Amino acid sequence: MSEEIKWYEKSGAEGDVVISSRIRLARNLRSLPFPEHLNDAGKQRVLELVQKEAMGANSLFANRFTWIPMTSLSKTAAVSMVERHLVSPEFISRPQGRALLLSKEEEIAVMVNGQDHLRLQVMKKGLSLKEAWKEANHLDDVFNERLSFAFDDRLGYLTQSPADLGTGLRASLVLHLPALEEGGIINRTIENLSKLGLSLRGVSFGEREEAVGSLYRLSNQVTLGLSEEEAITNLSGIAMQLIRQERGAREKLIARIEVQDMVARSLGILRTARILSAGECMKLLSNVRLGVYTGMISGIPLEQLNRLSVLAQPATLRLPSLHEESSGEEPDIMRARIFREALED
Amino acid sequence: MSEEIKWYEKSGAEGDVVISSRIRLARNLRSLPFPEHLNDAGKQRVLELVQKEAMGANSLFANRFTWIPMTSLSKTAAVSMVERHLVSPEFISRPQGRALLLSKEEEIAVMVNGQDHLRLQVMKKGLSLKEAWKEANHLDDVFNERLSFAFDDRLGYLTQSPADLGTGLRASLVLHLPALEEGGIINRTIENLSKLGLSLRGVSFGEREEAVGSLYRLSNQVTLGLSEEEAITNLSGIAMQLIRQERGAREKLIARIEVQDMVARSLGILRTARILSAGECMKLLSNVRLGVYTGMISGIPLEQLNRLSVLAQPATLRLPSLHEESSGEEPDIMRARIFREALED
Repeated sequence: MSEEIKWYEKSGAEGDVVISSRIRLARNLRSLPFPEHLNDAGKQRVLELVQKEAMGANSLFANRFTWIPMTSLSKTAAVSMVERHLVSPEFISRPQGRALLLSKEEEIAVMVNGQDHLRLQVMKKGLSLKEAWKEANHLDDVFNERLSFAFDDRLGYLTQSPADLGTGLRASLVLHLPALEEGGIINRTIENLSKLGLSLRGVSFGEREEAVGSLYRLSNQVTLGLSEEEAITNLSGIAMQLIRQERGAREKLIARIEVQDMVARSLGILRTARILSAGECMKLLSNVRLGVYTGMISGIPLEQLNRLSVLAQPATLRLPSLHEESSGEEPDIMRARIFREALED
Repeated sequence: MSEEIKWYEKSGAEGDVVISSRIRLARNLRSLPFPEHLNDAGKQRVLELVQKEAMGANSLFANRFTWIPMTSLSKTAAVSMVERHLVSPEFISRPQGRALLLSKEEEIAVMVNGQDHLRLQVMKKGLSLKEAWKEANHLDDVFNERLSFAFDDRLGYLTQSPADLGTGLRASLVLHLPALEEGGIINRTIENLSKLGLSLRGVSFGEREEAVGSLYRLSNQVTLGLSEEEAITNLSGIAMQLIRQERGAREKLIARIEVQDMVARSLGILRTARILSAGECMKLLSNVRLGVYTGMISGIPLEQLNRLSVLAQPATLRLPSLHEESSGEEPDIMRARIFREALED
């Protein structure tokens, strides 16, 4: 990770509920079989083609992107990428023959030789699906011109998984829904959304499975028979409904003294603890976020909470580039120190 | 409670382990049967005799003491006296025909018509048994001269309970023993002490039974065949042993990061909570005390912790004289507010 401020360290539109927006496009080269059916030499061919177009002398990307062969990464660095939502857990599980094309602000990431030849991914802070789609669409055009993607008039973009056929588009939002979760409303919401072809799921970080910190990913499930714009408009509309619901529920929630107590203590603990597990930390951060949104806590910008939620992750925490004094300190002790220092009164 | 600083709001010798010292003398008037055998008129006679000598025009005490008929107190005010260790829970359970003679700093308290006609009690901050005994002895002499106490050459002072025969003296110390408690050493210590004729018991506050905040009362059990000075020297000697043990155990305890974490969080929670039960509060205060003793926490004087431990008690908290804004506030919410304000950074 470079010193540049990353997209996920900022806060954007509807930032009180929407942490981030993501557009992901599944694409495959017309000239070669899906990665699953490629041997090492075949995968190497894909890597060379993509690297040449993206990073070559005449390419548009060379200055903006870094080319990262997955085999060049330590386990920690790879897991940290999952924690930062740059790659999927599956992608780092078999690094051989795979690479990541990553923009400097980490807003654009292209997984090469995962399930598909290319997964183009654009991420934005806050609710910003249209902007993300615009960029992804442009990127897609540039790549398509140079690499020529497999496309069928009836089925649309051809993909390894039939679930991606058509637009090959997954639009998704990470939402912070502590109030809907607390009220138990979230479970009914998840059911209702699935009937509308949308998925709402707890976000897990890195290698851990369980959802933490009341974060949920809302995404479209239907890619066939619907244009990209329709899918994105649809998702944004549903998101706005959830945002309104969550805001209403928060007002009721924070009126309860028990919740005020929990929020206030959470900040007290983050400011003082000497040992802090990633799980507890995410729970406390979620509570503090609620306090900041509702005006109960002042003086802590959302950007700082965004930065800290990423830092709190087990592998990202251990990235040596992030800390000068990381030598030998236990992760839970280091995490506690970082939070104490960052949130000092 | 007047505005004067009370003895229990200070800190004294060996104040890192010894919260307070107390001398209690059981005495009965020669001229009248024990309170148990007195009817209302008889009890009234005792009250009149004592009040006249203590508070009358020529008495030595009038300016220094307040005469408090127990029937004049609200339930809250009475329970608060138990919380401040001025009277026993039994004493307030039947207020009829009983009174308390209380010095302005609340250092001296005389229960009239409890189990015995008089229980003279002198309390001091820190380890101060000899000074407390000196004052109690003087008080005893003055009263004896005017009231004439029942005394038998063989049995010593005559008391309602045979356990008090002889000197009628109970010397006791309140000790803070978080480290011996944490290590589980306390239970073996309690057993060993009982073989030496000493008792070590968890201190409970007010009407609640359970011991809280790692506070223990060490007291002598033997009153016959031992002079007052012997009993006090004996108790002080044992106390010094316990003090050394506790200090040693604390050093080991605070070296553990888990304990540092607990201590630091405890202060963080006391500084931020919006709801605080008396039990949780005493536990957190105990942890903070440990932090202050060991130098982990600075800037919080022990005197303040002493004052707050008394304030934290359920009845004392509700005494209107202590707070201007107490109207209608829930006790746990009021307690949290008082601690937030008192411990603000």
